[in-house]
Amino acid sequence: MDKLEMRHTLLAAKARKKLSWDEIGKAIGMSPVWTASACYGMNSASREVAHKLCDVLEVDTEVADALTAFPTKAWDEAIPQDPFIYRLYEVVGVYGETLKDVVQEKFGDGIMSAIDFTMEVDKVEDPKGDRVLLTLNGKFLPYKAW
Amino acid sequence: MDKLEMRHTLLAAKARKKLSWDEIGKAIGMSPVWTASACYGMNSASREVAHKLCDVLEVDTEVADALTAFPTKAWDEAIPQDPFIYRLYEVVGVYGETLKDVVQEKFGDGIMSAIDFTMEVDKVEDPKGDRVLLTLNGKFLPYKAW
Amino acid sequence: MDKLEMRHTLLAAKARKKLSWDEIGKAIGMSPVWTASACYGMNSASREVAHKLCDVLEVDTEVADALTAFPTKAWDEAIPQDPFIYRLYEVVGVYGETLKDVVQEKFGDGIMSAIDFTMEVDKVEDPKGDRVLLTLNGKFLPYKAW
Amino acid sequence: MDKLEMRHTLLAAKARKKLSWDEIGKAIGMSPVWTASACYGMNSASREVAHKLCDVLEVDTEVADALTAFPTKAWDEAIPQDPFIYRLYEVVGVYGETLKDVVQEKFGDGIMSAIDFTMEVDKVEDPKGDRVLLTLNGKFLPYKAW
Amino acid sequence: MDKLEMRHTLLAAKARKKLSWDEIGKAIGMSPVWTASACYGMNSASREVAHKLCDVLEVDTEVADALTAFPTKAWDEAIPQDPFIYRLYEVVGVYGETLKDVVQEKFGDGIMSAIDFTMEVDKVEDPKGDRVLLTLNGKFLPYKAW
Amino acid sequence: MDKLEMRHTLLAAKARKKLSWDEIGKAIGMSPVWTASACYGMNSASREVAHKLCDVLEVDTEVADALTAFPTKAWDEAIPQDPFIYRLYEVVGVYGETLKDVVQEKFGDGIMSAIDFTMEVDKVEDPKGDRVLLTLNGKFLPYKAW
Amino acid sequence: MDKLEMRHTLLAAKARKKLSWDEIGKAIGMSPVWTASACYGMNSASREVAHKLCDVLEVDTEVADALTAFPTKAWDEAIPQDPFIYRLYEVVGVYGETLKDVVQEKFGDGIMSAIDFTMEVDKVEDPKGDRVLLTLNGKFLPYKAW
Amino acid sequence: MDKLEMRHTLLAAKARKKLSWDEIGKAIGMSPVWTASACYGMNSASREVAHKLCDVLEVDTEVADALTAFPTKAWDEAIPQDPFIYRLYEVVGVYGETLKDVVQEKFGDGIMSAIDFTMEVDKVEDPKGDRVLLTLNGKFLPYKAW
Amino acid sequence: MDKLEMRHTLLAAKARKKLSWDEIGKAIGMSPVWTASACYGMNSASREVAHKLCDVLEVDTEVADALTAFPTKAWDEAIPQDPFIYRLYEVVGVYGETLKDVVQEKFGDGIMSAIDFTMEVDKVEDPKGDRVLLTLNGKFLPYKAW
Amino acid sequence: MDKLEMRHTLLAAKARKKLSWDEIGKAIGMSPVWTASACYGMNSASREVAHKLCDVLEVDTEVADALTAFPTKAWDEAIPQDPFIYRLYEVVGVYGETLKDVVQEKFGDGIMSAIDFTMEVDKVEDPKGDRVLLTLNGKFLPYKAW
Repeated sequence: MDKLEMRHTLLAAKARKKLSWDEIGKAIGMSPVWTASACYGMNSASREVAHKLCDVLEVDTEVADALTAFPTKAWDEAIPQDPFIYRLYEVVGVYGETLKDVVQEKFGDGIMSAIDFTMEVDKVEDPKGDRVLLTLNGKFLPYKAW
Repeated sequence: MDKLEMRHTLLAAKARKKLSWDEIGKAIGMSPVWTASACYGMNSASREVAHKLCDVLEVDTEVADALTAFPTKAWDEAIPQDPFIYRLYEVVGVYGETLKDVVQEKFGDGIMSAIDFTMEVDKVEDPKGDRVLLTLNGKFLPYKAW
Repeated sequence: MDKLEMRHTLLAAKARKKLSWDEIGKAIGMSPVWTASACYGMNSASREVAHKLCDVLEVDTEVADALTAFPTKAWDEAIPQDPFIYRLYEVVGVYGETLKDVVQEKFGDGIMSAIDFTMEVDKVEDPKGDRVLLTLNGKFLPYKAW
Repeated sequence: MDKLEMRHTLLAAKARKKLSWDEIGKAIGMSPVWTASACYGMNSASREVAHKLCDVLEVDTEVADALTAFPTKAWDEAIPQDPFIYRLYEVVGVYGETLKDVVQEKFGDGIMSAIDFTMEVDKVEDPKGDRVLLTLNGKFLPYKAW
Repeated sequence: MDKLEMRHTLLAAKARKKLSWDEIGKAIGMSPVWTASACYGMNSASREVAHKLCDVLEVDTEVADALTAFPTKAWDEAIPQDPFIYRLYEVVGVYGETLKDVVQEKFGDGIMSAIDFTMEVDKVEDPKGDRVLLTLNGKFLPYKAW
Repeated sequence: MDKLEMRHTLLAAKARKKLSWDEIGKAIGMSPVWTASACYGMNSASREVAHKLCDVLEVDTEVADALTAFPTKAWDEAIPQDPFIYRLYEVVGVYGETLKDVVQEKFGDGIMSAIDFTMEVDKVEDPKGDRVLLTLNGKFLPYKAW
Repeated sequence: MDKLEMRHTLLAAKARKKLSWDEIGKAIGMSPVWTASACYGMNSASREVAHKLCDVLEVDTEVADALTAFPTKAWDEAIPQDPFIYRLYEVVGVYGETLKDVVQEKFGDGIMSAIDFTMEVDKVEDPKGDRVLLTLNGKFLPYKAW
Repeated sequence: MDKLEMRHTLLAAKARKKLSWDEIGKAIGMSPVWTASACYGMNSASREVAHKLCDVLEVDTEVADALTAFPTKAWDEAIPQDPFIYRLYEVVGVYGETLKDVVQEKFGDGIMSAIDFTMEVDKVEDPKGDRVLLTLNGKFLPYKAW
Repeated sequence: MDKLEMRHTLLAAKARKKLSWDEIGKAIGMSPVWTASACYGMNSASREVAHKLCDVLEVDTEVADALTAFPTKAWDEAIPQDPFIYRLYEVVGVYGETLKDVVQEKFGDGIMSAIDFTMEVDKVEDPKGDRVLLTLNGKFLPYKAW
Repeated sequence: MDKLEMRHTLLAAKARKKLSWDEIGKAIGMSPVWTASACYGMNSASREVAHKLCDVLEVDTEVADALTAFPTKAWDEAIPQDPFIYRLYEVVGVYGETLKDVVQEKFGDGIMSAIDFTMEVDKVEDPKGDRVLLTLNGKFLPYKAW
């Protein structure tokens, strides 16, 4: 079973069991964003977490093997088209240079890791329209001179 | 004076006065990320803020006119090359679909606005390596049916 | 049933029942453009509208589930090739900068939303050749300073 | 004087004279969108209109020659980056196929001309946020069989 | 039956019946180039012509429905690779600017329509090597000022 | 003097002398399309023709040297943007495959040369709108088997 | 049978019969490079040669029909990736301008035909490493002035 | 002096002295193709050859330094546009796979080097039209297993 | 059996037999990197090695034929997306020019062969985080003057 | 002084003083590859190292400021063209997937850092042709689950 088939199986099971990413995440002791990304095939799970996930979603343990496989990460569109994802791309385009300057002023020459990295989604209720709060948390990696 | 010349003038003044984005932001009553993005030419300032900025950085008021002009936002590289900015692009590629699902499950069909939008950078000190905390805060815009 | 299969089912039913988008829209209480876009899989319908649509077109209610799913919007060609769609792209290329200036002069720095957005098609009869009237109606979103 | 230099001259004169596109359009008897597009170098003006425009903006008549020249239309970005213009591009991507179907159902096989074409911008005030009304009006051109 | 299946059916029937485009065109009262383009799925036929074509090629009348459908025109390669088609692309690249100038000098600012448009292929016998004569005939559309 | 400078010199002289391509072509004994393409720098002239051209346009004979130089042909946009040139590109996209079939049926496997090639522009007056007649005339080159 | 199926059939037969391109070419009276290119579907064969080829490789005569069909030539990668083919592409990139100058100095303004064209591969044994000798032979086509 | 300035100097000197690549190559003891490519900045010359070249073309010895510099090879167009160079690109596209098979059948798995590589241009006179003979000679490099 | 099917068969067998690339490489007398690349279909094996590999992984000898076939090397993404592979691409982008200068200073004008080439992966344990040691070893090929 | 001007200054000084990267590296206590990359503007130097470098190359201390600035890393060609750099790109394309598998088998799911990273160039003399030894040394970063 490859990641694509795994993903279809897991998303179908999630729909069938009417569970949210919050509920699944809680049940397996992981955050909802990571849980979703593992089910989408963009992160590998430990054996233990994979089996818990299969239990929660009541799918075959063969799926657990697919969950533990190391993914080859890829996305279809170099410039995303879906408006939700495009807006994130636009933020990187519009604010990338700004963020680089603000972060490097605070931390020195280096980058924010996308590997030693976590992310969170929160909802801030607001009478003028609810707001999405996206928190990215990555280790700062200083460039090495040698 | 166009945005490019404005940017060179402001960044040179900032270096000359040895002020950080935090300090400039505080002095003009705006956040450091917004302040930097306005100086980089990616946001327009109100007349009042523009003049405060020129005072703080001791530059000609002609720069204030450039700061209030509405920018045409653009970036050189559809796929960014600088490692700092690329990592943000990678996050959008790897987690875009995941975020769309997690957010839309919480909010319904719609997007996170990149216009009614704010951003913050924080430093979390950590003995294993300091961490960059990036907070994106955008209004949720539901799709309209008509 | 995914959006693609839904689309084939709905377009086939529409042809079978010889209904126009105007007629279907009227029957479900929505505009013809939105109705078509939902059938093409580019917008999600509320449960109620989805069921009305399935009734009108006499298709299985399984199609209604597909209609309520939140779509991932995508198009095949970054630069469209079909002459009808290319002409719209050309209008954006030729007049994009002009429109930005005219609108921002009237409204301030910001954009016309493509999310809080409606569209209409009208036919203006004319002895020298009928004319297509396309009306785009989007909420103005001012940039936020923070 | 080429179109680029003409454009800089005209936009500078417009800023100096603090005239809006509405005011200039009214003064020369043309619509504001067409007026702006001619000043941006995307349309040619008749000799008469060109001279009126130079009078209104008080620029050298050499500019009038540039205004009457037939432009080579081009835009920098195949996929626009500025958020204002990108939203229009997104509308073409998301709704292009839908519009083609709705229009061709009404008019037969053919296209909406982008040459025999006019456009208007209106502001609809709304307590929940003003709305931009964009009206595109193009002659329908039926495909010819031969 | 979609345009692709229609095309395979028609080309197979043409080969089976050993008819040339000239012969088929004559039999249905249309030009050979238009006839071929309709069979390739790049133009729609009137109901009457479609039925004549099905009679001539002795194919099922279901094919006639496909012939009357309005096509979505597309081509695989933005820059064509087949040497025959590339040479036409090269002509557009090498002579495009020249043709624009020569035509606009004769007709004013505007374009040659590709919609109200016909094309012909002729063979000019020549002892030094026969020559292909390609005649493009398109309505001139003047730009509209408004 | 390179081809670019030559082109500016020749087009300026043509405007100064208010000559059309037809008139210049006649004066030097060449067709207007070829004459324009040589002035645009897309074809080289014989020494004799180059000198006649310089006489007619009253420019320095140094321009004649540039006219005889063998050009490196190039165009800025792989997919043209100017509407006049784009329509020609669209014709190649929509009808390329059709033309290949119609021509090869008549001539055998091979191509229409873009080198041993001439082109003509004619104006056909028509009360419903004048028409542009573009005639391409290229030697047929059969593929060689060896 | 299309060119793709033809190619699979012919390459499988060649492997089964353990014949080299030299041997097949000799048997049908054609050069090995042309023979291979016809089997790969990049050239059409005369009826006579096609039948000889089918005899030599002992495949069905239906393959002969596919061999005589006029191919639509295409390649997957605008910039080739396989190291063997990339090196040829690199030669064109590095030496293209040089070759144009050297050839045009010898022959005048024009090109080397890729249609009236033959190619040969030879092996030159050398103790320091054997060498590949590639000979391209194309008719010179002078540009036409008209 | 960089390679670009060197190239302009050398080509201007060549024109001034009315020498062909054959004559220059003979005078410095190198082949005409290599000589041209070194002058175009695509190969470095030994100190001795560089000085001979400067003597022959009577240019400053500073040019000799530029000739010995190791070039960074680049070309403007991933897909060449000039018809002369495009035809070579087309040959690589159409025959690349064929050549790979014919060569590897003769030599084993490996490539023809584009580094340990020479090239020659010859003119074959022919009453039906002269022919260009291009000979590429590259060392065969077998893949290494380890 | 083509390279793709071969690859699936070999990777499945490797998983089934729970062998590492080190173990398989040792068993067939080849390095682990080369062994993996041959199984991935990016290098051809000698008949002897291919049979050893089939023995070790207990797969059908038909796989051995596929292993000895000369591959057409290709990769899906001109700019890789998987973060592991992208980091290598980034190294080439960031350090390519630097490496060219450092190597050519040491070796003269030429390249490091990617054909006469070997590679090794080592693990350096480190309390601050283990390190990957990648060693590339390629023959230096000096440019040839001729 | 920006990085580009700094680079020209440093490379000119290096040529003037006839120092190799090895010699400069030794003099400032850094490796030759890092030293070159800092001079090329692809890494920032500490204040101390920057001043040593300026001393060794005898350039103005203003250059030291440019050396300490944090660079925005970029490269011109997404697919490199210079043969030296292309070969490295080819290695990433051909062996990227292989390396990912071999490394992740040894280290688990994660990447080799391009930030906490060093590189070395060595020359291995060999009678059959000297070899380039490139050693890449990057910290392994395991993916984080959260």
